[in-house]
Amino acid sequence: MCMLTLVIGNKNYSSWSLRPYLVLETFGIAFDEVRILLDTPHFQEDVARWAPNRRVPALHDDGLVIWDSLAICEYINERYLDGRGWPVDVAARAQARSAAAEMHSGFGALRAQMPMNMRRTPDKYCWDDAAARDAARIQAMWRELREAHGQGGPFLCGAFSIVDAMYAPVVSRFLSYGVPMDDNARAFADAIQSLPAWNRWRDAAFAEVEYLVDTEHFRA
Amino acid sequence: MCMLTLVIGNKNYSSWSLRPYLVLETFGIAFDEVRILLDTPHFQEDVARWAPNRRVPALHDDGLVIWDSLAICEYINERYLDGRGWPVDVAARAQARSAAAEMHSGFGALRAQMPMNMRRTPDKYCWDDAAARDAARIQAMWRELREAHGQGGPFLCGAFSIVDAMYAPVVSRFLSYGVPMDDNARAFADAIQSLPAWNRWRDAAFAEVEYLVDTEHFRA
Repeated sequence: MCMLTLVIGNKNYSSWSLRPYLVLETFGIAFDEVRILLDTPHFQEDVARWAPNRRVPALHDDGLVIWDSLAICEYINERYLDGRGWPVDVAARAQARSAAAEMHSGFGALRAQMPMNMRRTPDKYCWDDAAARDAARIQAMWRELREAHGQGGPFLCGAFSIVDAMYAPVVSRFLSYGVPMDDNARAFADAIQSLPAWNRWRDAAFAEVEYLVDTEHFRA
Repeated sequence: MCMLTLVIGNKNYSSWSLRPYLVLETFGIAFDEVRILLDTPHFQEDVARWAPNRRVPALHDDGLVIWDSLAICEYINERYLDGRGWPVDVAARAQARSAAAEMHSGFGALRAQMPMNMRRTPDKYCWDDAAARDAARIQAMWRELREAHGQGGPFLCGAFSIVDAMYAPVVSRFLSYGVPMDDNARAFADAIQSLPAWNRWRDAAFAEVEYLVDTEHFRA
């Protein structure tokens, strides 16, 4: 049994859960996993035992409860990574945190119209102008980050850091809904897909048994 | 001229701008202020000169641009406060960040139905069950934080920290829409209202000239 327990939702759907999972796994920090399936009649009751805000993800560390994906990442960075969770360079770190925070509170149209569904494959699905603007802003930001801070590696600020984990679910959305990507976005998507932790999560998402019938998947 | 420039929106309305302002002012960090009025025909053009995401607030530090309220607070904490922006205690800091992040991405019903409007006074305004649940969750969280970490002062984790700034606009909303507060919430609201920076901001909000007619205010 580990000191750390990460409480997550369905691997196929829970974009917020994927983020701290990628950080913990990619930096090699051991943790136990508790998975609470979303949309069951007892989700509220189950999650209330783990998180005061009744949401996933939550992290338990020897009795201390940390809730919210971004706060969990900051905690891991401080307590287990000695700051290596963010880029070392001050400017890169400031802009990585800016981009992470922009994801954390924003891109509502993209999130609503393209919820993460890792098993999905592109079809004739359409999205509106607001979602297209979100996708364009994200790709512009990825380009700016990689141009300014991405010299040392294939991720947004070079080596893998928390900002990459924050945008990993967007990579999943772009791939599964068929959002056109420019070369820079494609290179970042390749880097995310090269992470062993991403592939373990994705395999588990494909193997996941749903409580409710996954209508979209069954239709496909 | 200072090294730091904080770009904000209207003091009466821009809840996100208030947060880093309170942190900078309360910790005594000098900065220049650029105010861009929201909802003018040239807002987009004006803000694009300062922020890549075209939103306020943004912080400029000697050429480096940091956007998003929470990222700005983390940057100030690291660069100018040597960590004093968050509680010293590990558990308090982890939960302060959790609460700050919960505010940053959440409470959509409360935010939509009770947008910050400092000049507003309570009337017969009604809100729905979702907004009432947001208000209840916020007050429960404030109670838990103050009980667990609030021994050293009147704020959520004792002394003033970033999490208090994150919830200051909620205090404004509770006051101006007449949301019932329990004793603990009232004590926290008093602490926020005792901050000189809060009062300077509020005075400026009352003195602010709008580009568009503030219909609600004119009706009152």
